[in-house]
Amino acid sequence: MIITFLTDFGLQDDFVGTCHGVIKRIAPEAEVIDITHGIPRQRVLQGALVLRNTLAYMPVGVHLAVIDPGVGGSRRALALRDGEGRLYVGPDNGLLLPAAERFGGVAAAHELANSDYALQPVSRTFHGRDLFAPAAAHLANGVELGELGPPVAAETLARLDIPQPEIGHGEAQASVLYVDRYGNVQLNLDREHMELVEISPGTRVELDCKGERYYAVAARTFADARPGDILLYEDSYRNIAIAINGGDAAEMLAARAGDRISLKRVL
Amino acid sequence: MIITFLTDFGLQDDFVGTCHGVIKRIAPEAEVIDITHGIPRQRVLQGALVLRNTLAYMPVGVHLAVIDPGVGGSRRALALRDGEGRLYVGPDNGLLLPAAERFGGVAAAHELANSDYALQPVSRTFHGRDLFAPAAAHLANGVELGELGPPVAAETLARLDIPQPEIGHGEAQASVLYVDRYGNVQLNLDREHMELVEISPGTRVELDCKGERYYAVAARTFADARPGDILLYEDSYRNIAIAINGGDAAEMLAARAGDRISLKRVL
Amino acid sequence: MIITFLTDFGLQDDFVGTCHGVIKRIAPEAEVIDITHGIPRQRVLQGALVLRNTLAYMPVGVHLAVIDPGVGGSRRALALRDGEGRLYVGPDNGLLLPAAERFGGVAAAHELANSDYALQPVSRTFHGRDLFAPAAAHLANGVELGELGPPVAAETLARLDIPQPEIGHGEAQASVLYVDRYGNVQLNLDREHMELVEISPGTRVELDCKGERYYAVAARTFADARPGDILLYEDSYRNIAIAINGGDAAEMLAARAGDRISLKRVL
Repeated sequence: MIITFLTDFGLQDDFVGTCHGVIKRIAPEAEVIDITHGIPRQRVLQGALVLRNTLAYMPVGVHLAVIDPGVGGSRRALALRDGEGRLYVGPDNGLLLPAAERFGGVAAAHELANSDYALQPVSRTFHGRDLFAPAAAHLANGVELGELGPPVAAETLARLDIPQPEIGHGEAQASVLYVDRYGNVQLNLDREHMELVEISPGTRVELDCKGERYYAVAARTFADARPGDILLYEDSYRNIAIAINGGDAAEMLAARAGDRISLKRVL
Repeated sequence: MIITFLTDFGLQDDFVGTCHGVIKRIAPEAEVIDITHGIPRQRVLQGALVLRNTLAYMPVGVHLAVIDPGVGGSRRALALRDGEGRLYVGPDNGLLLPAAERFGGVAAAHELANSDYALQPVSRTFHGRDLFAPAAAHLANGVELGELGPPVAAETLARLDIPQPEIGHGEAQASVLYVDRYGNVQLNLDREHMELVEISPGTRVELDCKGERYYAVAARTFADARPGDILLYEDSYRNIAIAINGGDAAEMLAARAGDRISLKRVL
Repeated sequence: MIITFLTDFGLQDDFVGTCHGVIKRIAPEAEVIDITHGIPRQRVLQGALVLRNTLAYMPVGVHLAVIDPGVGGSRRALALRDGEGRLYVGPDNGLLLPAAERFGGVAAAHELANSDYALQPVSRTFHGRDLFAPAAAHLANGVELGELGPPVAAETLARLDIPQPEIGHGEAQASVLYVDRYGNVQLNLDREHMELVEISPGTRVELDCKGERYYAVAARTFADARPGDILLYEDSYRNIAIAINGGDAAEMLAARAGDRISLKRVL
């Protein structure tokens, strides 16, 4: 059984390795795929979007995700099953829901309450190790979801506000969802939004980011723009993103997750 | 057989991946768990403490650890067995001992001297690849400890000075052992020290770090403090640590491993 | 079957994890060894040299490498076999060739053109996920190289210019190939070059880097130099490198990949 694993733990400390150890002690046959542990710390929304985007590329299995600013407080710990049979383990802060809803919605939800499936004593600050990783490992071993704790009504699960763009006549107000290693700036826009504002490959676009203006061109891929040109393209997860051919768009625009960027079609 | 692997190699270069390759060529059935490779370079003490803290969460196996500022010099290369049957491989600079002593002490120690179990020629600067990883892989294959080289008297093994706190009346002089990704500042104090200085959840505490004073409150977990409050809590490895709820304590205190911090109970 | 994996993707994003997922969906029995994903972004030459250096330490298998500034453009996608039976998958930009040529040369080359072995639709910006990882996984499953697409003439494959040093009488003009985590500065020089300029362990050497002069000593290993001394040594991949015993040579010299450094024997 595959366990996929996504966190904001980073790889500097032992957090990820310790969870791997915990999983392997409980489920020696399980195989762990690290989706990423580089989500910026405590950015639940970014983690939720990456989980939603990447799960289609993962074997169906147990999907463990931990970004947990509320650890030790009153937020619940969850195990879910989606409509296609994937299992999820993580905190009840919205992290798991966008993924589960892409794959048929929440078919069952249970609170992690059965102490037989946790490391004792459960620490107050590292539920990844003591609660979530053990639950994922037991699920990988074939333990039934309902064994982990009582059912939770799906409509009571915590939800994230995913920022929505404003679409106008030939212009859009967007938000930055994510900036990747290459400096590509992912926006909360997709191809349908681009059609509404009548931007298609070849269209020139004026960008406004924090009061500064830039000129970009809509393109199919990096190679369609000249080196140094700013381009607007549909990225590999079908979000519209801003890049610079051979450069770092996030650095040039000083853009970070959460920033507002407006786009305006240039006639 | 599981091989756990802890180093200061980082993940930017190929050092970790190359050791994985070496292990898999010798022991195709071995499975490697990377505890972390993010120990700050050449910080043997920090590595030793992380190894000691995390090993209880790892399957019993071969525990390979390499932080090796003395590579190419006269320090010995070691393989150990602890009182509970775990095997260790690494340099004789104190890195392995705190872990082995937590698990029953050093039951056997051998110097890595048998060239049959090393890659030839052994380079002068990368014993991780040429000496330690091969030894770990051969142990995972079932080679006997004694095959790797002659026994070494346990009392001749190099030891680290682990900094000890000074405990006074209602105050303590502590040292920073570790700063993690979240900016949590781990001190060389545990719950018994806190009891001696009569600090318990709810107590207000004055911190002095590099001449600057801060007020903190002792708490059970982050959620017990208001956002922005500095708190003193028992972390998941049972060390006392300083955190800021929703913030970065190490940044606010400008604290790094090795720094001195004094704590004083406020009446 | 082993798949080794080297990229410039970094570990902050999901790119590496997503490729792992893709591989495991196609080839559940394949085992992936991550050589490194820390090659500086889009530095094809550095990736090619690391692949060439490390492959001797890897099990023979499928060697997947993706550093791909030309993604979405006209560069071809390749699968190769070398003279010793290793298989390679990656872009036709020179990345794979130095490794293949170290192991018997290119015995067969095919273009990845058969859409049965790619994820559909192939995105324009993430061929690692959609084209290269699937091809590597299918090869690991035993698919024949020729199944992936038509043969390509080896002499038409893209080649990198590997910078060559200039060797004079008692002096050499070298280039920095790589700077590692410890600040060691790898040069495009080997032991034969050192013999030509008559530098051997114990020789004093004047370095000139960006107009600044430094004095170094040739040594066998770090431990042969005093703390703080700059030393010139043969590193574990048999390149000549500059280090500071207990320090960071790259920082002191402000040296980065591509910089020119001259060495002059001091009589």
